[in-house]
Amino acid sequence: KEERITLAHGSGGKATQTLIEAVFLDAFSNPMLDRLEDAAELSVNETRLALTTDSFVVSPLFFPGGNIGDLAVNGTVNDLAVSGAKPLYLTAGFILEEGFPVADLIRIVASMKAAADAAGVSIVTGDTKVVQRGKADGCYINTAGVGVVRCPGRLGAATVQPGDAVLVSGSIGDHGVTVMLARGELDIEADLVSDTAPVHDLVATLLAATPGVRAMRDATRGGVATILNEVAKAADVAVVVDEDKVPVGTEVRGASELLGIDPLYVACEGRIVVFVAGAEAETALDALRSHPLGREAALIGRVKADPPGLVLLNTTFGGTRICDLLVGDPLPRIC
Amino acid sequence: KEERITLAHGSGGKATQTLIEAVFLDAFSNPMLDRLEDAAELSVNETRLALTTDSFVVSPLFFPGGNIGDLAVNGTVNDLAVSGAKPLYLTAGFILEEGFPVADLIRIVASMKAAADAAGVSIVTGDTKVVQRGKADGCYINTAGVGVVRCPGRLGAATVQPGDAVLVSGSIGDHGVTVMLARGELDIEADLVSDTAPVHDLVATLLAATPGVRAMRDATRGGVATILNEVAKAADVAVVVDEDKVPVGTEVRGASELLGIDPLYVACEGRIVVFVAGAEAETALDALRSHPLGREAALIGRVKADPPGLVLLNTTFGGTRICDLLVGDPLPRIC
Ligand SMILES: Nc1ncnc2c1ncn2[C@@H]1O[C@H](COP(=O)(O)OP(=O)(O)OP(=O)(O)O)[C@@H](O)[C@H]1O
Ligand SMILES: Nc1ncnc2c1ncn2[C@@H]1O[C@H](COP(=O)(O)OP(=O)(O)OP(=O)(O)O)[C@@H](O)[C@H]1O
Ligand SMILES: [Mg+2]
Ligand SMILES: [Mg+2]
Ligand SMILES: [Mg+2]
Ligand SMILES: [Mg+2]
Ligand SMILES: [Mg+2]
Ligand SMILES: [Mg+2]
Repeated sequence: KEERITLAHGSGGKATQTLIEAVFLDAFSNPMLDRLEDAAELSVNETRLALTTDSFVVSPLFFPGGNIGDLAVNGTVNDLAVSGAKPLYLTAGFILEEGFPVADLIRIVASMKAAADAAGVSIVTGDTKVVQRGKADGCYINTAGVGVVRCPGRLGAATVQPGDAVLVSGSIGDHGVTVMLARGELDIEADLVSDTAPVHDLVATLLAATPGVRAMRDATRGGVATILNEVAKAADVAVVVDEDKVPVGTEVRGASELLGIDPLYVACEGRIVVFVAGAEAETALDALRSHPLGREAALIGRVKADPPGLVLLNTTFGGTRICDLLVGDPLPRIC
Repeated sequence: KEERITLAHGSGGKATQTLIEAVFLDAFSNPMLDRLEDAAELSVNETRLALTTDSFVVSPLFFPGGNIGDLAVNGTVNDLAVSGAKPLYLTAGFILEEGFPVADLIRIVASMKAAADAAGVSIVTGDTKVVQRGKADGCYINTAGVGVVRCPGRLGAATVQPGDAVLVSGSIGDHGVTVMLARGELDIEADLVSDTAPVHDLVATLLAATPGVRAMRDATRGGVATILNEVAKAADVAVVVDEDKVPVGTEVRGASELLGIDPLYVACEGRIVVFVAGAEAETALDALRSHPLGREAALIGRVKADPPGLVLLNTTFGGTRICDLLVGDPLPRIC
């Protein structure tokens, strides 16, 4: 076991999963948490609720297409949405660094309000802490979200089966590459904006048209490849993906090459991966494409029985290779 | 309006309130948030829920009587409890600094689990982010909490009336002074431990015995004086407190003098302030004292009609003075 926290523990990849299992699950274990879904499903009286949380530490705070504020609202809205819940109420916890410009805070808060309105949720409670200079990086935001579960107990990574189709709702990697470029550390000019968006309505459209949806995830840290691995493991199935079917924009492809990272591992903030019964693949694809956020949706692969727990990639060059969890953290603090 | 965030914005006092109203309420405003209670009350289907959040940035992370982990659980449990809700489910969001010892994280997480068990709540979902060295201070934790409301719409600062009695559940200031001393910046030896504790059971005992409870608050940042001011303002009443009836331990009194701060402004993490119909003051006091966490409960004052919005202190020396909101932040990062 490692003795100190490294950036890789925050990547969403292999080190994150190991830490979560060895430290957090080991201590907190309970049936709601142990499923490791995007949101926990729980009961209060007879009502089935979804509950989720994310902290946001993105750097820089402002980037093309968004800022930490709309990211913090959309991120939590999306974890509720992909869990099959209707997002309702959000909390907002701020950790501010001494010296942070109030004008920047006001911009961030205005973006949160606009994002909350767009997603139909209310921010009903909050908290504000301040730490000394050099003990944060301007502004960190945590949001937690409560939603009402639409179809209790039906969705979940563990329900995915051989024969299912794997869909992605749009081109991948835009958010991660946009944030990397916004840091100005790379000498690339690209006309790229983050894909940050609330997917609640896209998900509602999909679920209304497609009873055979088994599981959805938003492809955030670790990207689409991480989601596929999580599902392969949870359902004990193989996921086989055709590389050339995965929608990747030209600019993302170019920047990823320069960064030395596969777009499959780059974070999106408004894209979902969908697992659906094979017979309903086309229905699901049509439903996604009927929505503005899903116009570029694509069928990217299939679920098989073997080899269980693995993701296989049929590469553009005709070979097949294992597409494992991300090791290290090539893109720190993209959310 | 100030142009940059200062430590005072995190004190819980005047600057915090101004920031919350001018920036957060101004943008997010809705009936649930606008009450500015410890938890928001909301409906999902027919169920009345309470929802709250707090981030924890205490320094040092470990102090006599507790650490950031039990603080993060108890703090959120207490905001639910004083809102009249039964705490049920918690989220846990970690922001870790690169290089943080995994062994410390394991200790913190074990304390969270023990505190959750003691309060009868489950940690059902979480998040783990890592920032580079120098961009945090070891470990920050956010918790959000969901509870079920016991008596919908009944409790709240705005319901406090002239004639009500003001009680405190025990000696004040232990937590704040303990954390200050743990920093080792003062040359004082004191045999003091934090009062961090979950008050859900104390509150349940009180509510069962005393139908006339109007409002409760946990006296965290800004201490008892801040709570009294918040209630005086929300209910548009005067709160008159007898200084010599406020229970303050000898060590807290001594350290506060050296720190140059009034114990009334020092944070507790396991003490509540109770407003109750005057006729039930003794019943409430007996109920509090019957519980291990309320043995030193005291009646410290009364609510009057005039002057509305102010807290008056009858001092030990026989005078009366206004006890206003805290200005500045003499004790940063005590939670
Ligand atoms: N510190 C923690 N304590 C308890 N559970 C955790 C913790 N961190 C993560 N988890 C759980 O692990 C699972 C994966 O968390 P993760 O944050 O990677 O998911 P996500 O929010 O969908 O992704 P992202 O944070 O990139 O948006 C979730 O079920 C989450 O509840
Ligand atoms: N950033 C924010 N956005 C929206 N509301 C906020 C924000 N910060 C605080 N609030 C609201 O202001 C009120 C006071 O918050 P505060 O954090 O002082 O209360 P508390 O949690 O009881 O105290 P403490 O944080 O010291 O434990 C609450 O109703 C809270 O919801
Ligand atoms: Mg997710
Ligand atoms: Mg998320
Ligand atoms: Mg708070
Ligand atoms: Mg409180
Ligand atoms: Mg609190
Ligand atoms: Mg997360």
